Amino acid sequence: MADLTPDGPSVRIAAQMAFLTEADRLKSVLRASKLADGSRRENSGEHSWHLALYAMTLADHAPEGVDITRVMRMLILHDLVEIDTGDVPIHSKNGSVHHSAATMAAEARAAERIFGLLPEDQAASFRALWLEFEAGESPDAVFARSLDRLQPVMQNIAGGGGSWLEYSVTWPQLKERVGVKIARGAPELWDWVREKARPWFPHQD
Amino acid sequence: MADLTPDGPSVRIAAQMAFLTEADRLKSVLRASKLADGSRRENSGEHSWHLALYAMTLADHAPEGVDITRVMRMLILHDLVEIDTGDVPIHSKNGSVHHSAATMAAEARAAERIFGLLPEDQAASFRALWLEFEAGESPDAVFARSLDRLQPVMQNIAGGGGSWLEYSVTWPQLKERVGVKIARGAPELWDWVREKARPWFPHQD
Repeated sequence: MADLTPDGPSVRIAAQMAFLTEADRLKSVLRASKLADGSRRENSGEHSWHLALYAMTLADHAPEGVDITRVMRMLILHDLVEIDTGDVPIHSKNGSVHHSAATMAAEARAAERIFGLLPEDQAASFRALWLEFEAGESPDAVFARSLDRLQPVMQNIAGGGGSWLEYSVTWPQLKERVGVKIARGAPELWDWVREKARPWFPHQD
Repeated sequence: MADLTPDGPSVRIAAQMAFLTEADRLKSVLRASKLADGSRRENSGEHSWHLALYAMTLADHAPEGVDITRVMRMLILHDLVEIDTGDVPIHSKNGSVHHSAATMAAEARAAERIFGLLPEDQAASFRALWLEFEAGESPDAVFARSLDRLQPVMQNIAGGGGSWLEYSVTWPQLKERVGVKIARGAPELWDWVREKARPWFPHQD
Protein backbone atom coordinates (compact mmCIF):
# COMPACT_ATOMS: atom_id res chain seq x y z
CA MET A 1 0.00 0.00 0.00
CA ALA A 2 1.17 3.51 -0.75
CA ASP A 3 2.10 5.55 2.30
CA LEU A 4 -0.55 8.27 2.62
CA THR A 5 0.81 10.12 5.65
CA PRO A 6 1.22 13.87 5.02
CA ASP A 7 5.01 13.68 4.73
CA GLY A 8 5.11 10.24 3.15
CA PRO A 9 6.73 9.56 -0.22
CA SER A 10 3.35 9.24 -1.91
CA VAL A 11 2.45 12.87 -1.08
CA ARG A 12 5.73 13.99 -2.62
CA ILE A 13 5.21 11.83 -5.70
CA ALA A 14 1.65 13.14 -6.09
CA ALA A 15 2.94 16.75 -6.18
CA GLN A 16 5.69 15.86 -8.66
CA MET A 17 3.23 14.04 -10.92
CA ALA A 18 0.77 16.97 -10.77
CA PHE A 19 3.60 19.23 -11.98
CA LEU A 20 4.64 16.80 -14.74
CA THR A 21 1.07 16.47 -16.01
CA GLU A 22 0.54 20.25 -15.95
CA ALA A 23 3.84 20.65 -17.85
CA ASP A 24 2.34 18.56 -20.66
CA ARG A 25 0.36 21.65 -21.69
CA LEU A 26 3.58 23.23 -23.05
CA LYS A 27 3.16 20.90 -26.03
CA SER A 28 0.10 22.93 -27.01
CA VAL A 29 1.80 26.36 -26.90
CA LEU A 30 2.66 27.38 -30.46
CA ARG A 31 5.65 29.51 -31.42
CA ALA A 32 6.22 31.80 -34.39
CA SER A 33 8.92 29.49 -35.76
CA LYS A 34 8.08 26.52 -37.91
CA LEU A 35 9.57 23.05 -38.18
CA ALA A 36 12.61 22.87 -40.43
CA ASP A 37 10.45 21.38 -43.21
CA GLY A 38 8.04 24.33 -42.93
CA SER A 39 5.05 22.00 -42.42
CA ARG A 40 3.65 23.56 -39.25
CA ARG A 41 4.46 25.83 -36.33
CA GLU A 42 6.73 24.44 -33.66
CA ASN A 43 5.42 24.03 -30.11
CA SER A 44 7.36 25.09 -27.03
CA GLY A 45 7.71 21.53 -25.67
CA GLU A 46 9.47 20.14 -28.73
CA HIS A 47 11.43 23.41 -29.05
CA SER A 48 12.74 22.86 -25.49
CA TRP A 49 13.84 19.33 -26.40
CA HIS A 50 15.60 20.63 -29.50
CA LEU A 51 17.43 23.24 -27.41
CA ALA A 52 18.63 20.64 -24.90
CA LEU A 53 20.01 18.71 -27.88
CA TYR A 54 21.61 21.95 -29.17
CA ALA A 55 23.35 22.32 -25.80
CA MET A 56 24.66 18.73 -25.84
CA THR A 57 25.81 19.01 -29.44
CA LEU A 58 27.34 22.50 -29.39
CA ALA A 59 28.95 22.23 -25.95
CA ASP A 60 32.45 22.63 -27.40
CA HIS A 61 31.57 26.18 -28.52
CA ALA A 62 30.62 27.32 -25.01
CA PRO A 63 32.98 29.69 -23.22
CA GLU A 64 35.23 28.09 -20.62
CA GLY A 65 33.52 27.58 -17.29
CA VAL A 66 30.04 27.00 -18.70
CA ASP A 67 28.36 23.96 -17.10
CA ILE A 68 26.47 22.29 -19.96
CA THR A 69 24.40 20.22 -17.55
CA ARG A 70 22.99 23.36 -15.93
CA VAL A 71 22.43 24.86 -19.38
CA MET A 72 20.40 21.79 -20.37
CA ARG A 73 18.33 21.98 -17.19
CA MET A 74 17.64 25.68 -17.78
CA LEU A 75 16.57 25.03 -21.35
CA ILE A 76 14.23 22.22 -20.33
CA LEU A 77 12.50 24.59 -17.87
CA HIS A 78 12.85 27.93 -19.63
CA ASP A 79 9.53 28.06 -21.47
CA LEU A 80 7.19 26.44 -18.91
CA VAL A 81 5.74 29.84 -17.95
CA GLU A 82 4.28 30.02 -21.48
CA ILE A 83 1.60 27.55 -20.34
CA ASP A 84 -0.05 30.63 -18.77
CA THR A 85 1.30 33.47 -20.90
CA GLY A 86 1.71 31.96 -24.37
CA ASP A 87 4.80 32.51 -26.47
CA VAL A 88 5.73 36.14 -27.14
CA PRO A 89 7.51 36.14 -30.52
CA ILE A 90 10.69 38.20 -30.50
CA HIS A 91 9.78 40.03 -33.72
CA SER A 92 6.07 40.59 -32.94
CA LYS A 93 4.77 44.19 -32.66
CA ASN A 94 8.11 45.30 -34.05
CA GLY A 95 9.96 43.83 -31.08
CA SER A 96 8.11 45.94 -28.46
CA VAL A 97 6.45 43.24 -26.34
CA HIS A 98 9.14 40.61 -25.91
CA HIS A 99 10.70 41.13 -22.48
CA SER A 100 8.42 44.14 -21.75
CA ALA A 101 7.58 44.87 -18.08
CA ALA A 102 4.03 43.54 -18.55
CA THR A 103 5.26 40.32 -20.14
CA MET A 104 7.83 39.79 -17.41
CA ALA A 105 5.28 40.33 -14.61
CA ALA A 106 2.89 37.82 -16.18
CA GLU A 107 5.73 35.31 -16.52
CA ALA A 108 6.71 35.76 -12.87
CA ARG A 109 3.12 34.97 -11.78
CA ALA A 110 3.12 31.92 -14.05
CA ALA A 111 6.38 30.68 -12.53
CA GLU A 112 4.88 31.05 -9.06
CA ARG A 113 1.86 28.96 -9.99
CA ILE A 114 3.51 26.27 -12.13
CA PHE A 115 6.68 25.60 -10.09
CA GLY A 116 4.48 25.96 -6.99
CA LEU A 117 2.86 22.63 -7.85
CA LEU A 118 6.12 20.90 -6.85
CA PRO A 119 7.29 20.02 -3.34
CA GLU A 120 8.69 23.18 -1.74
CA ASP A 121 12.40 22.37 -2.11
CA GLN A 122 12.05 21.60 -5.81
CA ALA A 123 9.76 24.56 -6.44
CA ALA A 124 12.49 26.82 -5.06
CA SER A 125 15.35 25.24 -7.03
CA PHE A 126 13.49 25.07 -10.36
CA ARG A 127 12.27 28.66 -9.99
CA ALA A 128 15.81 29.82 -9.16
CA LEU A 129 17.12 28.18 -12.32
CA TRP A 130 14.35 29.83 -14.38
CA LEU A 131 15.12 33.23 -12.81
CA GLU A 132 18.81 32.78 -13.61
CA PHE A 133 17.91 32.10 -17.24
CA GLU A 134 15.61 35.13 -17.35
CA ALA A 135 18.23 37.43 -15.80
CA GLY A 136 20.69 36.32 -18.48
CA GLU A 137 23.77 37.30 -16.51
CA SER A 138 25.54 34.13 -15.40
CA PRO A 139 27.78 32.42 -17.99
CA ASP A 140 25.42 29.42 -18.07
CA ALA A 141 22.38 31.64 -18.72
CA VAL A 142 24.19 33.69 -21.38
CA PHE A 143 25.09 30.52 -23.30
CA ALA A 144 21.58 29.08 -22.88
CA ARG A 145 20.07 32.30 -24.25
CA SER A 146 22.44 32.25 -27.22
CA LEU A 147 21.14 28.80 -28.17
CA ASP A 148 17.53 29.96 -27.69
CA ARG A 149 18.21 32.68 -30.29
CA LEU A 150 20.25 30.46 -32.60
CA GLN A 151 17.72 27.65 -33.05
CA PRO A 152 14.96 29.74 -34.71
CA VAL A 153 17.54 31.19 -37.11
CA MET A 154 18.45 27.66 -38.15
CA GLN A 155 14.74 26.74 -38.48
CA ASN A 156 14.13 29.80 -40.68
CA ILE A 157 17.12 29.04 -42.90
CA ALA A 158 16.00 25.41 -43.31
CA GLY A 159 12.34 26.26 -43.80
CA GLY A 160 12.39 29.04 -46.36
CA GLY A 161 12.54 32.20 -44.31
CA GLY A 162 9.73 31.37 -41.87
CA SER A 163 9.04 34.02 -39.25
CA TRP A 164 11.40 36.56 -40.91
CA LEU A 165 9.05 36.84 -43.88
CA GLU A 166 5.93 36.81 -41.71
CA TYR A 167 7.16 39.69 -39.52
CA SER A 168 9.05 41.53 -42.31
CA VAL A 169 12.27 41.37 -40.34
CA THR A 170 15.19 43.40 -41.69
CA TRP A 171 18.89 42.52 -41.53
CA PRO A 172 19.63 45.31 -39.00
CA GLN A 173 16.75 44.03 -36.81
CA LEU A 174 18.03 40.47 -37.00
CA LYS A 175 21.51 41.59 -36.04
CA GLU A 176 20.20 43.68 -33.14
CA ARG A 177 17.50 41.39 -31.71
CA VAL A 178 19.19 38.08 -32.43
CA GLY A 179 22.79 38.36 -33.62
CA VAL A 180 24.06 40.39 -30.68
CA LYS A 181 22.62 37.82 -28.28
CA ILE A 182 23.97 34.78 -30.08
CA ALA A 183 27.39 36.45 -30.28
CA ARG A 184 27.39 37.28 -26.58
CA GLY A 185 27.39 33.63 -25.49
CA ALA A 186 28.70 31.88 -28.59
CA PRO A 187 30.66 34.18 -30.90
CA GLU A 188 31.92 31.47 -33.26
CA LEU A 189 28.39 30.14 -33.73
CA TRP A 190 27.18 33.63 -34.72
CA ASP A 191 30.11 33.99 -37.14
CA TRP A 192 29.01 30.76 -38.80
CA VAL A 193 25.26 31.33 -38.88
CA ARG A 194 25.51 34.99 -39.92
CA GLU A 195 26.96 33.89 -43.27
CA LYS A 196 24.10 31.43 -43.76
CA ALA A 197 21.41 33.96 -42.81
CA ARG A 198 22.83 36.91 -44.77
CA PRO A 199 21.51 35.87 -48.24
CA TRP A 200 17.92 35.98 -46.87
CA PHE A 201 18.21 39.77 -46.52
CA PRO A 202 19.38 41.02 -49.92
CA HIS A 203 19.91 44.72 -50.59
CA GLN A 204 20.04 45.56 -46.86
CA ASP A 205 22.97 46.82 -44.85
CA MET B 1 35.34 35.29 -42.25
CA ALA B 2 34.55 31.73 -41.24
CA ASP B 3 37.49 29.35 -41.35
CA LEU B 4 36.83 26.94 -44.22
CA THR B 5 39.88 24.71 -43.87
CA PRO B 6 38.99 21.00 -43.62
CA ASP B 7 39.68 20.80 -39.87
CA GLY B 8 38.58 24.34 -39.11
CA PRO B 9 35.81 25.11 -36.63
CA SER B 10 33.35 25.92 -39.40
CA VAL B 11 33.56 22.37 -40.78
CA ARG B 12 32.82 21.03 -37.32
CA ILE B 13 29.94 23.47 -36.82
CA ALA B 14 28.50 22.57 -40.23
CA ALA B 15 28.39 18.87 -39.26
CA GLN B 16 26.80 19.66 -35.89
CA MET B 17 24.18 21.88 -37.51
CA ALA B 18 23.38 19.24 -40.13
CA PHE B 19 22.72 16.79 -37.28
CA LEU B 20 20.59 19.31 -35.36
CA THR B 21 18.48 20.10 -38.42
CA GLU B 22 18.02 16.41 -39.23
CA ALA B 23 17.00 15.83 -35.59
CA ASP B 24 14.13 18.27 -36.14
CA ARG B 25 12.31 15.50 -37.99
CA LEU B 26 11.68 13.71 -34.67
CA LYS B 27 8.94 16.32 -34.09
CA SER B 28 7.00 14.68 -36.94
CA VAL B 29 7.19 11.10 -35.60
CA LEU B 30 3.89 10.29 -33.91
CA ARG B 31 3.52 7.94 -30.95
CA ALA B 32 0.57 5.83 -29.79
CA SER B 33 0.20 7.97 -26.65
CA LYS B 34 -1.79 11.16 -26.66
CA LEU B 35 -1.30 14.47 -24.89
CA ALA B 36 -2.65 14.51 -21.34
CA ASP B 37 -5.73 16.43 -22.55
CA GLY B 38 -6.39 13.74 -25.18
CA SER B 39 -6.42 16.32 -27.99
CA ARG B 40 -3.91 14.66 -30.32
CA ARG B 41 -1.13 12.10 -30.50
CA GLU B 42 2.17 13.03 -28.93
CA ASN B 43 5.28 13.28 -31.10
CA SER B 44 8.63 11.79 -30.13
CA GLY B 45 10.38 15.17 -29.88
CA GLU B 46 8.05 16.62 -27.27
CA HIS B 47 7.92 13.19 -25.55
CA SER B 48 11.72 13.32 -25.20
CA TRP B 49 11.51 16.78 -23.62
CA HIS B 50 8.85 15.55 -21.22
CA LEU B 51 11.05 12.60 -20.21
CA ALA B 52 14.04 14.86 -19.52
CA LEU B 53 11.73 16.86 -17.25
CA TYR B 54 10.57 13.60 -15.63
CA ALA B 55 14.21 12.77 -14.88
CA MET B 56 14.89 16.21 -13.34
CA THR B 57 11.70 16.08 -11.28
CA LEU B 58 11.78 12.46 -10.11
CA ALA B 59 15.52 12.30 -9.45
CA ASP B 60 15.00 11.65 -5.74
CA HIS B 61 13.32 8.32 -6.56
CA ALA B 62 16.33 7.01 -8.50
CA PRO B 63 18.42 4.26 -6.88
CA GLU B 64 21.65 5.42 -5.29
CA GLY B 65 24.47 5.85 -7.77
CA VAL B 66 22.27 6.89 -10.71
CA ASP B 67 23.70 9.95 -12.50
CA ILE B 68 20.64 12.02 -13.43
CA THR B 69 22.62 14.11 -15.90
CA ARG B 70 23.50 11.01 -17.92
CA VAL B 71 19.88 9.86 -17.67
CA MET B 72 18.73 13.19 -19.12
CA ARG B 73 21.23 12.95 -21.96
CA MET B 74 20.10 9.42 -22.75
CA LEU B 75 16.46 10.45 -22.78
CA ILE B 76 17.13 13.38 -25.08
CA LEU B 77 18.81 11.03 -27.58
CA HIS B 78 16.86 7.82 -27.04
CA ASP B 79 14.22 8.18 -29.76
CA LEU B 80 16.25 9.82 -32.56
CA VAL B 81 16.44 6.53 -34.48
CA GLU B 82 12.66 6.78 -34.96
CA ILE B 83 13.32 9.41 -37.65
CA ASP B 84 14.08 6.42 -39.88
CA THR B 85 12.09 3.61 -38.24
CA GLY B 86 9.01 5.35 -36.81
CA ASP B 87 7.74 4.66 -33.31
CA VAL B 88 6.94 1.00 -32.53
CA PRO B 89 4.16 1.11 -29.92
CA ILE B 90 4.79 -1.27 -27.04
CA HIS B 91 1.28 -2.72 -27.20
CA SER B 92 0.98 -2.96 -31.01
CA LYS B 93 0.56 -6.43 -32.62
CA ASN B 94 -0.04 -7.76 -29.13
CA GLY B 95 3.46 -6.73 -28.03
CA SER B 96 5.26 -8.83 -30.67
CA VAL B 97 7.16 -6.16 -32.63
CA HIS B 98 8.54 -3.87 -29.96
CA HIS B 99 12.18 -4.82 -29.42
CA SER B 100 11.99 -7.63 -32.03
CA ALA B 101 15.21 -8.55 -33.87
CA ALA B 102 14.01 -6.83 -37.05
CA THR B 103 13.13 -3.63 -35.19
CA MET B 104 16.47 -3.60 -33.41
CA ALA B 105 18.44 -4.10 -36.64
CA ALA B 106 16.58 -1.23 -38.31
CA GLU B 107 17.25 0.99 -35.29
CA ALA B 108 20.96 0.15 -35.37
CA ARG B 109 21.16 1.22 -39.04
CA ALA B 110 19.30 4.42 -38.19
CA ALA B 111 21.72 5.20 -35.37
CA GLU B 112 24.64 4.69 -37.77
CA ARG B 113 23.18 7.18 -40.25
CA ILE B 114 21.84 9.83 -37.89
CA PHE B 115 24.67 10.01 -35.33
CA GLY B 116 27.05 9.64 -38.30
CA LEU B 117 26.16 13.17 -39.36
CA LEU B 118 28.13 14.46 -36.37
CA PRO B 119 31.90 14.95 -36.10
CA GLU B 120 33.46 11.54 -35.43
CA ASP B 121 34.15 11.99 -31.70
CA GLN B 122 30.58 13.08 -31.01
CA ALA B 123 29.08 10.43 -33.27
CA ALA B 124 30.87 7.80 -31.18
CA SER B 125 29.89 9.22 -27.80
CA PHE B 126 26.23 9.85 -28.69
CA ARG B 127 25.90 6.39 -30.23
CA ALA B 128 27.48 4.81 -27.15
CA LEU B 129 24.95 6.55 -24.93
CA TRP B 130 22.09 5.37 -27.15
CA LEU B 131 23.45 1.79 -27.11
CA GLU B 132 23.68 1.92 -23.32
CA PHE B 133 20.02 2.96 -23.17
CA GLU B 134 19.01 0.20 -25.58
CA ALA B 135 20.94 -2.45 -23.65
CA GLY B 136 19.12 -1.39 -20.48
CA GLU B 137 21.71 -2.85 -18.14
CA SER B 138 23.57 0.03 -16.49
CA PRO B 139 21.82 1.69 -13.51
CA ASP B 140 21.43 4.91 -15.51
CA ALA B 141 19.81 3.07 -18.43
CA VAL B 142 17.52 1.07 -16.14
CA PHE B 143 16.21 4.27 -14.51
CA ALA B 144 15.87 6.03 -17.90
CA ARG B 145 13.83 3.11 -19.23
CA SER B 146 11.60 3.14 -16.16
CA LEU B 147 10.70 6.77 -16.88
CA ASP B 148 10.12 5.96 -20.57
CA ARG B 149 7.52 3.39 -19.45
CA LEU B 150 6.05 5.56 -16.69
CA GLN B 151 5.24 8.66 -18.77
CA PRO B 152 2.73 7.00 -21.15
CA VAL B 153 0.94 5.47 -18.13
CA MET B 154 0.53 8.98 -16.71
CA GLN B 155 -0.64 10.29 -20.13
CA ASN B 156 -3.23 7.48 -20.37
CA ILE B 157 -4.52 8.12 -16.84
CA ALA B 158 -4.82 11.86 -17.52
CA GLY B 159 -6.32 11.44 -20.97
CA GLY B 160 -9.06 8.88 -20.44
CA GLY B 161 -7.36 5.56 -21.10
CA GLY B 162 -5.67 6.50 -24.39
CA SER B 163 -3.61 3.71 -25.97
CA TRP B 164 -4.87 1.09 -23.46
CA LEU B 165 -8.34 1.28 -24.95
CA GLU B 166 -7.06 1.46 -28.52
CA TYR B 167 -4.94 -1.68 -28.16
CA SER B 168 -7.33 -3.49 -25.73
CA VAL B 169 -4.57 -3.83 -23.17
CA THR B 170 -5.34 -6.04 -20.16
CA TRP B 171 -4.14 -5.56 -16.58
CA PRO B 172 -1.80 -8.60 -16.77
CA GLN B 173 -0.31 -7.20 -20.01
CA LEU B 174 0.20 -3.80 -18.45
CA LYS B 175 1.92 -5.33 -15.46
CA GLU B 176 4.15 -7.51 -17.65
CA ARG B 177 5.06 -5.06 -20.44
CA VAL B 178 5.17 -1.91 -18.36
CA GLY B 179 4.91 -2.46 -14.61
CA VAL B 180 7.86 -4.83 -14.32
CA LYS B 181 10.06 -2.32 -16.14
CA ILE B 182 8.98 0.70 -14.12
CA ALA B 183 9.49 -1.31 -10.92
CA ARG B 184 12.96 -2.41 -11.97
CA GLY B 185 14.38 1.13 -11.97
CA ALA B 186 11.93 2.96 -9.75
CA PRO B 187 9.96 0.65 -7.43
CA GLU B 188 8.31 3.40 -5.38
CA LEU B 189 7.08 5.12 -8.54
CA TRP B 190 5.47 1.87 -9.71
CA ASP B 191 3.86 1.40 -6.28
CA TRP B 192 2.32 4.85 -6.64
CA VAL B 193 1.22 4.69 -10.28
CA ARG B 194 -0.11 1.10 -10.04
CA GLU B 195 -2.83 2.31 -7.68
CA LYS B 196 -3.78 5.08 -10.11
CA ALA B 197 -3.82 2.77 -13.13
CA ARG B 198 -5.65 -0.13 -11.48
CA PRO B 199 -9.21 1.29 -11.76
CA TRP B 200 -8.84 1.46 -15.57
CA PHE B 201 -8.81 -2.36 -15.67
CA PRO B 202 -11.91 -3.46 -13.74
CA HIS B 203 -12.82 -7.13 -13.32
CA GLN B 204 -9.29 -8.27 -14.28
CA ASP B 205 -6.73 -10.00 -12.11
